Amino acid sequence: MAGSELIDVSSLTALATDALCRAGVAHDDARVSGRILVEADMMGLGTHGVVRLPDYVNRLRLGGIDARAAVHIDRRGASVAIADGGNGLGTVVGTRALAAALEMVEASGIAYVGCRNSNHFGALAPYALQACEAGYVLIAGSNASTTMAPWGGKDKRIGNNPLCVAAPCADGTHFILDMAMSVAARGKIRAAQAAGAPIPPGWAVDRDGIATVDPGEALAGILLPIGAHKGSGLSMAVDILSGVLTGAGFLTGISSWSERPAEPSNLGHFFLLLDPARLVGRDTYASAMSRFQAIVLSTPPADPAQPVLLPGQLEQTRRRAALESGVAVRADLLASLRDLAGGLT
Amino acid sequence: MAGSELIDVSSLTALATDALCRAGVAHDDARVSGRILVEADMMGLGTHGVVRLPDYVNRLRLGGIDARAAVHIDRRGASVAIADGGNGLGTVVGTRALAAALEMVEASGIAYVGCRNSNHFGALAPYALQACEAGYVLIAGSNASTTMAPWGGKDKRIGNNPLCVAAPCADGTHFILDMAMSVAARGKIRAAQAAGAPIPPGWAVDRDGIATVDPGEALAGILLPIGAHKGSGLSMAVDILSGVLTGAGFLTGISSWSERPAEPSNLGHFFLLLDPARLVGRDTYASAMSRFQAIVLSTPPADPAQPVLLPGQLEQTRRRAALESGVAVRADLLASLRDLAGGLT
Repeated sequence: MAGSELIDVSSLTALATDALCRAGVAHDDARVSGRILVEADMMGLGTHGVVRLPDYVNRLRLGGIDARAAVHIDRRGASVAIADGGNGLGTVVGTRALAAALEMVEASGIAYVGCRNSNHFGALAPYALQACEAGYVLIAGSNASTTMAPWGGKDKRIGNNPLCVAAPCADGTHFILDMAMSVAARGKIRAAQAAGAPIPPGWAVDRDGIATVDPGEALAGILLPIGAHKGSGLSMAVDILSGVLTGAGFLTGISSWSERPAEPSNLGHFFLLLDPARLVGRDTYASAMSRFQAIVLSTPPADPAQPVLLPGQLEQTRRRAALESGVAVRADLLASLRDLAGGLT
Repeated sequence: MAGSELIDVSSLTALATDALCRAGVAHDDARVSGRILVEADMMGLGTHGVVRLPDYVNRLRLGGIDARAAVHIDRRGASVAIADGGNGLGTVVGTRALAAALEMVEASGIAYVGCRNSNHFGALAPYALQACEAGYVLIAGSNASTTMAPWGGKDKRIGNNPLCVAAPCADGTHFILDMAMSVAARGKIRAAQAAGAPIPPGWAVDRDGIATVDPGEALAGILLPIGAHKGSGLSMAVDILSGVLTGAGFLTGISSWSERPAEPSNLGHFFLLLDPARLVGRDTYASAMSRFQAIVLSTPPADPAQPVLLPGQLEQTRRRAALESGVAVRADLLASLRDLAGGLT
């Protein structure tokens, strides 16, 4: 990467931890958050990695996120709980909620933990990896501030909500599907704009809800969901599971962290875990999942140069490389992280 | 509908019940199956309604489905169970599994029931409606025989697997998202072929995995998933939750009911229920969900003549009309159903 620097994982984690500590976050919470963000960078999910730290720190300083919040886990049964994040860092809320879910699923074979009063919690894949390493199947999601329209509408009232389904595999490369609901990410539209190129039809509508291939109009307009009414409905479904069912905000009730950084986002997330060992037995599950991987991976590719991949495979390959050789971080970002860390690292 | 006849719901259900009884199914099981199919017709989901009965009866007669199978529910914990369908009618397996899940969720706030050794179980929406009427949020899915390729591949190795998320609403019109993973159903491509029209790009590839707008090549080829790799991954995720986690068949391990009607399909399904009353309280949930509906429904439409709808709204409007005025069934189908029922009705 041009203008970037390779930094090893533990140094980058320490830098992220120090930056958050300096913004008033307790060391344990800062470390947990740093790990979630660095995990995303390791997987190549750069938009959800340490690039978020300047925003996190800004919101902590403005009081939009409470640096000293404690996550309160309210058990509503042997297998269900609500985690109230107290408007703390979403990365801390998510990590504590997942830990509670992991405890419950071990005892009962299933767990749902819904989170409220939370904020941006990074990418879902790092949480999914943790669940898979522990041997559990995960369904998880989060709502987000509104950037898309319900299908047929021309006003932003649904979020580009991520949904994740993950399943452990015996070979250590787990099935991790981590997807949002838009056909294309805004970053791809910005890239087309920079290149002076039109975008493909079906990516976006302009501010009046009319289809456009002009990247500028698309960026001022609204992203389109995958599968038209299907992706729109799926975004709402994730919002119900993350927001309505947890007592968090939902739809237009979520405050945008970029437009109103000094206000709580009141985001909601959920983690649902299932124990395959309890359902079908450890060995039966492991061998079925290996067969599943083999059937998909041996599919003849349409383009012989592009073998068929499983969801999450590329990200986990990148992660292993990052553990060996470090993560490439933009030099200007790294400089600002060092600045935020105040020379502690 | 031209060439169709209006028939009231209870007569149509009796007809379906008798047709299945005459094929050797016990009365209770036949009635349960008839109701699931007629519910789909009432909602306007005609491809999953009584049109399936001739195939069901054919498979029952050939021994591909066991008319006298008993569903065995194996509780693996307070909130998790596996339903072994014994190769019976999928509509019976699904109904018994949902009943078990409803019992468990009432006691513990959460339930997962996975089904194996099952067959085609109709549409998901009728099950979802039942869960909503009982006050529970549902996530459910099923695998299906392979009709799509994993993204980037040119061999049919994944099913067009349906996924359903539903949430009860106080006004009695529930949120019911019931979707499969293809951009367009095969029926729409057949309609284009009949009209001599091309299909839009992005619906299908030919048998070599190359994009096509020719409906004939599309029908001989492979349907494309929504959102490219996203829909492909989501189909796999539903298969893991329905097939791998239940001990059912999955991917190419599922036998096609149309190509091999005399063989068990070994389909898998799952029902996951959550109790909103336990999680956030009945009233809090109900008022949040009403707000959710209002925010979506009041979205300014792109086309003023097409107001924005919630998932499942149209289907439930049709269902209420059907309860009043009956269901329109093609005259030739109705004649063959009467034939199958042997004049019992």
